[in-house]
Amino acid sequence: MKFGIVIFPSKSMQDKANSFRKRYDPHYALIPPHITLKSPFDATEEKAKEIAQELDKVSDKLKPFTLKIGKVSSFAPVNNVIYFKVEKTPELEALNEKLHTGYFAQEREYTFVPHITLGQDMSDGEHADVLGQLRMIEFHHEQTVDRLHLLYQLEDGSWTVYETFQLGKDC
Amino acid sequence: MKFGIVIFPSKSMQDKANSFRKRYDPHYALIPPHITLKSPFDATEEKAKEIAQELDKVSDKLKPFTLKIGKVSSFAPVNNVIYFKVEKTPELEALNEKLHTGYFAQEREYTFVPHITLGQDMSDGEHADVLGQLRMIEFHHEQTVDRLHLLYQLEDGSWTVYETFQLGKDC
Repeated sequence: MKFGIVIFPSKSMQDKANSFRKRYDPHYALIPPHITLKSPFDATEEKAKEIAQELDKVSDKLKPFTLKIGKVSSFAPVNNVIYFKVEKTPELEALNEKLHTGYFAQEREYTFVPHITLGQDMSDGEHADVLGQLRMIEFHHEQTVDRLHLLYQLEDGSWTVYETFQLGKDC
Repeated sequence: MKFGIVIFPSKSMQDKANSFRKRYDPHYALIPPHITLKSPFDATEEKAKEIAQELDKVSDKLKPFTLKIGKVSSFAPVNNVIYFKVEKTPELEALNEKLHTGYFAQEREYTFVPHITLGQDMSDGEHADVLGQLRMIEFHHEQTVDRLHLLYQLEDGSWTVYETFQLGKDC
């Protein structure tokens, strides 16, 4: 089965993102608004506890940090994906790095560009229209991140949380 | 905002439930298949950490237990809700009781009937049809439950996990 590791931003941030996802993101109903820290990876259901233990070790040693979100951007022309840009702080980069080395070694398909997806699977025309509109939005959000979530995917493509991990228990 | 406390059964059980929910449950996209331990209750976002601390105390002292699921039933004529019946074991009852007393005191609207909803908001005719079909299903599922989840509701009605709580850390 597929596992993934994400940050869920605060409720207000999720509500804001969902107001766009509802219209523009076909994955809207599959998962709440999130920042992907590690792309979906395969493991058996029995491995979940081991993954959780390793994730505990990572999260215990990293302090809660500030998340800065603002500005709508796009991955076009590579992908017609519109997103809220998340500032790539050293803390976020370190966390992402720890989730791609050692026990969590995984080849990267793309460079890490932290983001919250607002729309995807769009035609070029729709993408240009929507991006034009959303780029006008004045938005800035700042919050503390103190937890990560390990998720697994169901048959229908939706995601369920297996466990949460608080940052900085050993700090 | 609204908080709720649930058990997510294993992936295979969720997949089974979703195969019915997809067709019969309008809440299908709002939350993965679950057993509600405490109905939605109001609290401010700032209260989340306190609720989590109290839930930690409850879950630390209760051991993992066996969940037995089988037989499709309905809350009709009170509500046209079709569900997988979950056996009301002493462990499940004790857990539910702890989530309705002390810090978690809450008036109960209904007696606790542990279940996984498969369909709801049905007309009487549709309800009778679907129940007639699903009652024929031979199904039995048994698994260990070792964790609870505290959720909060977004503006659009969907639920995000705030934190997971492992059972029996103090046992």
